[in-house]
Amino acid sequence: MPKTKSTARTTAKRNAFYAQSGGVTAVINASACGVIETATRHSRHIGKLYAGRDGIVGALTESLIDVSRESRETLRGLRHTPAGAFGSARFKLKGLDQNRAEYERLIEVFRAHDIGYFFYNGGNDSMDTALKVSQLASQLGYPITCIGVPKTVDNDLPHTDCCPGFGSVAKFVAVSTLEAGLDVASMARTSTKVFVLEVMGRHAGWIAAAGGLAGRKPHEPPHIILFPEIPFDRERFLDKVKQCVTAYGYCVIVVSEGAAYPDGRFLADAGSKDAFGHTQLGGVAPVVAAMVRDAHGYKYHWAVADYLQRAARHVASKVDVEQAYAVGKAAMELAVQGVNAVMPIIVRQSSRPYRWTLGHVPLSAVANQERKVPREYITPDGFGITEACRRYLAPLVAGEAYPPYRDGLPDYVRVKGVLARKRLTTEFKM
Amino acid sequence: MPKTKSTARTTAKRNAFYAQSGGVTAVINASACGVIETATRHSRHIGKLYAGRDGIVGALTESLIDVSRESRETLRGLRHTPAGAFGSARFKLKGLDQNRAEYERLIEVFRAHDIGYFFYNGGNDSMDTALKVSQLASQLGYPITCIGVPKTVDNDLPHTDCCPGFGSVAKFVAVSTLEAGLDVASMARTSTKVFVLEVMGRHAGWIAAAGGLAGRKPHEPPHIILFPEIPFDRERFLDKVKQCVTAYGYCVIVVSEGAAYPDGRFLADAGSKDAFGHTQLGGVAPVVAAMVRDAHGYKYHWAVADYLQRAARHVASKVDVEQAYAVGKAAMELAVQGVNAVMPIIVRQSSRPYRWTLGHVPLSAVANQERKVPREYITPDGFGITEACRRYLAPLVAGEAYPPYRDGLPDYVRVKGVLARKRLTTEFKM
Repeated sequence: MPKTKSTARTTAKRNAFYAQSGGVTAVINASACGVIETATRHSRHIGKLYAGRDGIVGALTESLIDVSRESRETLRGLRHTPAGAFGSARFKLKGLDQNRAEYERLIEVFRAHDIGYFFYNGGNDSMDTALKVSQLASQLGYPITCIGVPKTVDNDLPHTDCCPGFGSVAKFVAVSTLEAGLDVASMARTSTKVFVLEVMGRHAGWIAAAGGLAGRKPHEPPHIILFPEIPFDRERFLDKVKQCVTAYGYCVIVVSEGAAYPDGRFLADAGSKDAFGHTQLGGVAPVVAAMVRDAHGYKYHWAVADYLQRAARHVASKVDVEQAYAVGKAAMELAVQGVNAVMPIIVRQSSRPYRWTLGHVPLSAVANQERKVPREYITPDGFGITEACRRYLAPLVAGEAYPPYRDGLPDYVRVKGVLARKRLTTEFKM
Repeated sequence: MPKTKSTARTTAKRNAFYAQSGGVTAVINASACGVIETATRHSRHIGKLYAGRDGIVGALTESLIDVSRESRETLRGLRHTPAGAFGSARFKLKGLDQNRAEYERLIEVFRAHDIGYFFYNGGNDSMDTALKVSQLASQLGYPITCIGVPKTVDNDLPHTDCCPGFGSVAKFVAVSTLEAGLDVASMARTSTKVFVLEVMGRHAGWIAAAGGLAGRKPHEPPHIILFPEIPFDRERFLDKVKQCVTAYGYCVIVVSEGAAYPDGRFLADAGSKDAFGHTQLGGVAPVVAAMVRDAHGYKYHWAVADYLQRAARHVASKVDVEQAYAVGKAAMELAVQGVNAVMPIIVRQSSRPYRWTLGHVPLSAVANQERKVPREYITPDGFGITEACRRYLAPLVAGEAYPPYRDGLPDYVRVKGVLARKRLTTEFKM
């Protein structure tokens, strides 16, 4: 793929800045590891490597973690450690015209620390930010190479075949659906008949779709998947639940937190009030379970996986870990080659056997785009995944990449997070 | 330990009946595997081995699964397969005086199939049932050996050092608390400050206590554990949440579903109503989260692990799997030695290094008893676990015992469940 833009590269060595952005994943630190370990192999181009404490906020407040102060063991351990080791933030920079000051502050900090490379590890919002930084730097005549590193459990970035972070949450959800399904099947004749598992995905149903990997035949759970892409139809849903309980003795439902009525209202906002009369935030699973109870009276259970799913490094997908590392490595390699304003992507060569390579696309092609589950991946009735979807998803959860354990628990690393000395006297108010 | 009772053993070979009871676990099938594989080594005593379809219900309805119809691979695979392969039931037999007919029916079915050995794999209720069957059989002059096989995620059986099933749910909860804790820590400065994880344990807080293994120092999650054993004090709890957020930047809470006010009301029943005005069943996590929001306004998230925790064979404790198999094996060995009306137990020889052996106690000593978390295992403030508790818990989550995987998912087995031909013309109405 073509370079989008080339900075006026200085031949001198310059420093680099890496930041984690948005909701964390089981493998975002593996991308950090890829960036960091690759930087050490390019010491001709890359001087110091800094990581933003709390992502981009660390740049704005000049809180730059000096990565060289971490031990090699800690840095290697990032590959098997979930969540954001340097801190992540949901902080979204506004448009250049709305808040130019923030971007100028970023450049000010970058200039103070001679940062010539900016790696931003996040989703579509973050790619937009990286693009804007690149544009403003160019306007201001400050030479910097901006590279996006894809990350999101939601799998909603365009152009890349998949997003690092997704494969592992998909594996957790598929495994949990399989296991809970066996549990419910064991006792359905005398106990719980309906089980509802709520998973993430506010706008795209990729994670919910992954639950579908747990079963291959109609009688195998999950029997129903509720996607954000399919407007919720209460009557059809309740009929399907009844059919499943009648035919199979039980019904396992995977519901996306983004499941919504035709008018766009989330099911989760559909009227649950707590003791204080506040709308209960989150929790579409109890809403769906109560709906089933009221219509059919079946005994039910529900689970809300929440952070457990995206932090579940203990059951990460090996493919996902490898791809997360690979995009971090590729980002650094592109940067030192002088390619600017791009994001590495995963390119699928074949599904069976699974073969993938890396490519890259301009940040402008990714920024603020969102990829949803296509209709042909969802069965005609709207409640399941098709064979095409299975073919797409299956390779992404393949392989196990267990963390090392100590005393029965995963031996995750924690960075010291020593900050570089500040060089600016100015402070930035968040 | 002394034998409690010896049946008039016939020297002839007799058939055996095995049933799973109550809520299933990640390792109850490993106990089944221990019973079954050991039976084949005692073919001088044990003829056919039947498993109850849906536990004791299978005996009452004469739905006896012929275990010899399953392949050796399937039977071996039970060791790594969660939930109840033969079906389990919460069906509780009433007292002998209240419903003698049920017990007589059991004996009738046992007699029709020449069942001389009864293995009941469950918790305290089940041990009571096994004891009553033994007593009535004796009154009726029907020779049968009744052995209990301990199982419960709640870890609330007395006499045994721990219960098979608990170590694995403990490991899932400790690992999940560790992982979700890292997630929250990554983003707390700019996002979620309070995370609540709801775990099982309606009367005993062992599972919640296991969450405490995730952290060793005060700043490490979980910062607060809410036990059923400690009456909930809203003000003290909210103060502690605020202290944690102030001191550490965030607060991770593990709450037992059985957490209750001093008057015994469950927090989960404390007034949440759904859109239809029904009391919201289950879900103490959202109640606790809303309490924190209303008092302090912190951004929060919550998760309800529900069946995910007790079915999580993918992250089972190796010690737990071994003990589950061992009690099944011991049950069969005790039976063929002519020991009656007992339950094998785990006896701890030392904690560091962990050494355990097997013993057995009379069913009468176990029936309807419940072991709670002792006060000395809970910190003086009621919100954490002590070093003594950690010493008790740590060995139980030790070691990994991963299932085999195929195409990215655990390769769990399913039994065919072929029923033996009925010999009775009478039917039993449940």
